Parts: sequence; structure tokens; C-alpha cells
Amino acid sequence: MSHPAVSLLADLIRRPSVTPIEDGVLDVVEAFLTPLGFECTRLPFEGDGSYPVDNLFAIRRGNGPHLLFAGHTDVVPPGDVAAWTHDPFSAEIVDGVMWGRGATDMKSGVAAFCGAVANLAANGGLDRGTISLAITNDEEADAVNGTKKIMEWADDRGEKFDFAIVGEPSSFETFGDSIKIGRRGSVSGKLTVVGKQGHAAYPQRANNPMPVIAALTQALYEPLDNGTEHFQPTNLEVTAIDTGNAASNVIPERASLRFNIRFNDTWTGETLLAEIHRRIAAVDARGCAIEFEQIGPVSRCFISQPEGHVAHLSDVMEQANGKRPIMSTIGGTSDARFIAQYCPVVECGLIGATMHQVDERVPVADVERLSDFYATYVASFFDRGTRD
Amino acid sequence: MSHPAVSLLADLIRRPSVTPIEDGVLDVVEAFLTPLGFECTRLPFEGDGSYPVDNLFAIRRGNGPHLLFAGHTDVVPPGDVAAWTHDPFSAEIVDGVMWGRGATDMKSGVAAFCGAVANLAANGGLDRGTISLAITNDEEADAVNGTKKIMEWADDRGEKFDFAIVGEPSSFETFGDSIKIGRRGSVSGKLTVVGKQGHAAYPQRANNPMPVIAALTQALYEPLDNGTEHFQPTNLEVTAIDTGNAASNVIPERASLRFNIRFNDTWTGETLLAEIHRRIAAVDARGCAIEFEQIGPVSRCFISQPEGHVAHLSDVMEQANGKRPIMSTIGGTSDARFIAQYCPVVECGLIGATMHQVDERVPVADVERLSDFYATYVASFFDRGTRD
Ligand SMILES: [Zn+2]
Ligand SMILES: [Zn+2]
Repeated sequence: MSHPAVSLLADLIRRPSVTPIEDGVLDVVEAFLTPLGFECTRLPFEGDGSYPVDNLFAIRRGNGPHLLFAGHTDVVPPGDVAAWTHDPFSAEIVDGVMWGRGATDMKSGVAAFCGAVANLAANGGLDRGTISLAITNDEEADAVNGTKKIMEWADDRGEKFDFAIVGEPSSFETFGDSIKIGRRGSVSGKLTVVGKQGHAAYPQRANNPMPVIAALTQALYEPLDNGTEHFQPTNLEVTAIDTGNAASNVIPERASLRFNIRFNDTWTGETLLAEIHRRIAAVDARGCAIEFEQIGPVSRCFISQPEGHVAHLSDVMEQANGKRPIMSTIGGTSDARFIAQYCPVVECGLIGATMHQVDERVPVADVERLSDFYATYVASFFDRGTRD
Repeated sequence: MSHPAVSLLADLIRRPSVTPIEDGVLDVVEAFLTPLGFECTRLPFEGDGSYPVDNLFAIRRGNGPHLLFAGHTDVVPPGDVAAWTHDPFSAEIVDGVMWGRGATDMKSGVAAFCGAVANLAANGGLDRGTISLAITNDEEADAVNGTKKIMEWADDRGEKFDFAIVGEPSSFETFGDSIKIGRRGSVSGKLTVVGKQGHAAYPQRANNPMPVIAALTQALYEPLDNGTEHFQPTNLEVTAIDTGNAASNVIPERASLRFNIRFNDTWTGETLLAEIHRRIAAVDARGCAIEFEQIGPVSRCFISQPEGHVAHLSDVMEQANGKRPIMSTIGGTSDARFIAQYCPVVECGLIGATMHQVDERVPVADVERLSDFYATYVASFFDRGTRD
């Protein structure tokens, strides 16, 4: 008999749930969990400048510690479908590999965890604690009406989680060689320098913003820190400078500069923006006005200290693999940042080699292995009790 | 009886000869000069990447030195015609002021010189030398098929000029307070920095061209010289930096920078471009490729030393005004640069306060004064003979 995670994964891939189209993908998860004793609540959220999103919160209460599994069913677009070796939404298995959009990021994670609880339920292993799943259909795009609001909703109704696992791909080369215990924060901004337009032959009648833009760029690129125990140094990139002036004999009135910062736990969004403002103020504006605009919200930096439940998860992984996972914090932001303020959280999943690419695919054995690891871990989590 | 320059100016303004539309404006000049004994040759030029342009070369040969008058009949567009107090092509005279596009730049200059030779011819004063007029209908735009080619054509047929006057507005606050004896050169270029695109969360997998753009900007802005006897310092302006990357989480592959340099007689186009290449090579490219592209041709810098005919013109102006004109070299390029390689050349004309603006206009008395000055000067030029 095939592993329940594998058949569930195929069902999920066959729903082309490109963000934010739900297309029944959450119905598939709900239909899988309900017979296992999960109380399922659909949480459609909308507003706050983003599109409506459907979400699912499922909980199976037991007497013991409370584990949250979080993940997403939405996928990035397939791109050029003709470029795929196998249809991105058919979940074909060829030579033991399942092909399709979401095969690694991260319908496999959702399917593996659901498969794990199904196997545990069959053996009565689910009763020694509480399991929740927070599944959103918008992680890949705005993430405004997804995990963040599920967590607020759960907190409002009094749910207390002891620990959370996000099923995102976290492994480098072999399964379990790395888990992510934190993520850098991210903030973007735009500076506009406004001078005075004029003819290039009469610079004294104009005020060119371009030297100020260059000075701002250099001021922004000064190092922000040297990294911390768990994080690489904060990094700033100027992602664009634009003037939109095609006339070679015209000094432009204004130019804009966009930047993005990936910051570690040296900073909060507030202290970092204060530092950016300090640097801007220190640049000689040469009579130009410098306007600052934050782009989008700050994604906070979070870290789950490698002790307690985090260390325990590593212990279980080491027992399973013979090798302790690296505690990593690299990469972009993830929905784990919305969970970190409620409980320790790690990302623990497959290798993400083909994620977001044409021909995304996953070995079926890897899905089974992840699912079995999740089952082993949940059992051990329950054994450990509420020690933290 | 009205001054011939004034009625001719009105006729010229009534032809809306926006570059390169000739609309009969050169016919008006030709019809004015032919009865005065001028041999008129129309010189339609085209090609070299620009639109076709009509031009007029008129010559009246006499026994003595050869004076060239150069000017243009084309005008810049009127802009918002509704914003004009009087129709830009009706040449209305209100309270002694003639309104219209080209009233100062520079149909007035052409009309004043033609009026001067008409008055001289009436008194037999044109026979003691040779007068040529090189009138183009494209100075305001490309200037590819205008004065440059007229001069080449005249040189090919063996014309030798002793001195040239360009009738562009050259005065600051009162007529004759300034003449232009040179102009800075101009050259424009574009630098493209090509790095490697990537995600802002993984800068080590990308190579951001933006810090290189900033460093190039600062390298270009280092002073080029301190000015020379007749010229202000060479000035460089970065006129645009563009990236075209709207995604805050993407490190762009490439960015471009445009600059324009107004250079004095410290440099030729060749030595200046060599200096720019030296500066580019000295910037740390951080693994990016830096591509250089010159935009348009080099406009050469020229200077007519303030001696000989130039000093003599100043003498005549001082006698007329009681004040010696300033020898200026400020402003953009002008067609005088195409003449400077054949003979000394100055720009000597009206105040340009309203040129290129809505409500361009000129006091009728100023046109008469300029025309009378030209007549006085031509007579003195002939008196002086071929001493230079
Ligand atoms: Zn994902
Ligand atoms: Zn002009």
C-alpha cells in the first residue's frame, strides 16, 4: 500500500493553486484531516491592501504538549508550461520521482506532515498531545492575509503552542543536513533627491541631484554590523537608481534610489530605519531635498535559540540521520517570522533544489522519509512532554 | 520710412519655420538680398543620420576683405500657443515691441544684417569688400545638414573669409555689453555596468552593479581643470542613472549612467575622452563589466583670440556704446564652432532674455540699433582692409 503522504501530495499538485487561487486545494487537506479527528476551520481573510486569501486551521486536541505545523498550499506560477518535461499539474511519477509545481515548495511538506499524523492516528499515537496545522494559500506573494492572520486568530481564541515546525524546504544536500532556526529581517525603502532642472551648459542655474544620489549610495553601503552568533552580517543592496532623463543636455530635477536591507538580530526595524535616517542626514544634500519612503512593511528578524524544543528536534534528526543538522539562518524571509512571536519555531523540510523552477520535482522516497521523520518527531515530542 | 530690418523681421516671423520646416523663410531672405546684388545659392543638404535641411549661401563680391555673416532662420517650437500674449507667428508690434517666435533667436539677427547691407548698398558702401551670408534652417536641432555643410561647400569652392560674425543673441543686459569669442565644447557618453542579477537575500550569488555606478559617478565628478584664460572650468554633469528594476528583492543585472561634459580649451574631444577612459579604468569594477558608448558627436571647443578683427569689432562697439564689450565664452554650443576652423568668428547680437520662451519678443528699436551697428561695423571692416 502506498504511503498516505505520497497519494495526498499527488492530489495537492493536481490543484493548480497559484497564489492566491485556492482551487480546492485546502478542501483536499481538510478532507484528509477530518476523518483523523481534526476540527477544521476555514479562515478566509481579506483587506489590508491585499487580495482575499483562503486559509485552514486544523486542530486535534489531546492531553499533552501542543505542536503547530505550518505551511502553504499556494505555488508560484509554472512559467512556460511547454518547457516542462512533464505537465506541472499532473503529478506524474517517473522512475520514482514525482513532477509538478509545489513538489518541493511545499505541497510535499504539507502532505508529509498530514501523512505522519495519519500514520500516528492509525496506531493511537495522536492522543498524547495536541496537534495543530496552520495552512495558508498565500505565502508566495503578499502574505498579508495568510499565516500572520491565522496566528492572530488562534491567539485571540486562546491557543497556546509549545513549538512550531514550518515544513519549508530547509535541507541543503541531503535530507536533514540543515534546519532553519531564524531568518533575517527585510526592509525596503526609496529615496528621492529633488534638485533643480536646468540646461547642462548652465549648471550654476540648476542643481543636479545625481552627485547626491551617488553620495547616498556610498553612505548606505557602509557596513551595518559584522554579523552575530547565528546570523551573517546585515546586508544592504541598492536595487535601483532611476532618473528617466533621456536628454543629454538637461540636468534632471530628480532621481530616485531604491534599496533593500536583510538584517540580523543586531537590529529591529525601528533601530535600523533610524540608522538609515542618520546616514541620510549625514550626506551633504548640496541644497537638494531628500525624501524617504518605506516600501512595504518591515519583515522582522527572528531567532529561535538552539535549546529546548529546537535542540530536541536536532537530537531526533541526529538519531534518524546519524548527523546533527546545521542551525541555519540564511535565505529570504518566510512565514516562520509570523509564528516566532508566539513560540519557538524552526523550518524543517526537504531539499529545495528545484523550487520555483521549471521541472520542479521530488523523489517519492524523500517524501516518505520526511513523513516518517515527522511521525517519529511528533511521537518524541509527545514523549518529551511540556518540559520547556 | 520704416527700417528695412524691421519689415524684413516681420516677414520672417510670419513664416513658422520650426526646425527643419523651411516654409518659405529662406525665399524671403533670398528675395531681399538678390536686388542688392547678392548671388544666392540654395544648398539643400541631407543624410548623415538627420533630416533634409534647406540652406542659403549669398555672396556679393567686392574689392577688399571678406566678411561672413552666419545665422539661422529656424526656430524652436512655440509650445503652448494659447499661453502667448500675442500670436507667435503674427509679428504684432505693440508699444514698440515686436512679438513672435524668433524675435530674438535669431530672425532679428538675420533681419538686422540684411537691413544693414541694404542701407549700405543704397549709399554705395558695399563695394569695398566681399560680404557673404551663410543662413541655415537647422541650428536649433541636429545641426547636421546646416552650417557645417555650408562651410564645407564654401571651402570646397575656394571661398576665403577674413572674419565671421554670427548674429546670435550675445548681449547680457544692454546691447553690446558682451560678445562671444568662443564656446566650450560638449561631449556626451553613456556607461553601462553589467553585473549579475540575483535575489537580494542571496547577494553572494549575484553581483550588484549599483556600487560601481556610484563609484563611477564620484570618479567622473572629480574636477577636470581650473579654467583657462578665456574659459570657466570644464564641467561634467551626470544627467541620468537608470536601472529599470521595480522589484525590491531583486539585485539588478545592469545599470546605466549618462553624462555630459562642457569642456574648455584645456582639452580636445580626444584628450578628454582619454581622461574619461582613464578614470573609468581606475574605478574598482568589482567583477562587473563597464561598457562605454559615446552619445552623438563631439562639439569642439573654439576660441577666437581677442586681437585683430575681434579686437577691432570691440573697438567699433566701444565707440558706438561708450563701453567695451565683455569677451565671453559662456553658454552652450553654437554654429560658430563650425566656422572657427576657417576664420576667426564672434557672436554679436541682441539680448536673448526671451529666447526659446513663451512670449519671445524684441523692442523694435533694438533691431534698428543692431542693424545700424552692423552697418557701421561693415563700413569700418572695409576701411580696415585686409590687415590680419
Ligand atoms: Zn515555500
Ligand atoms: Zn539661435
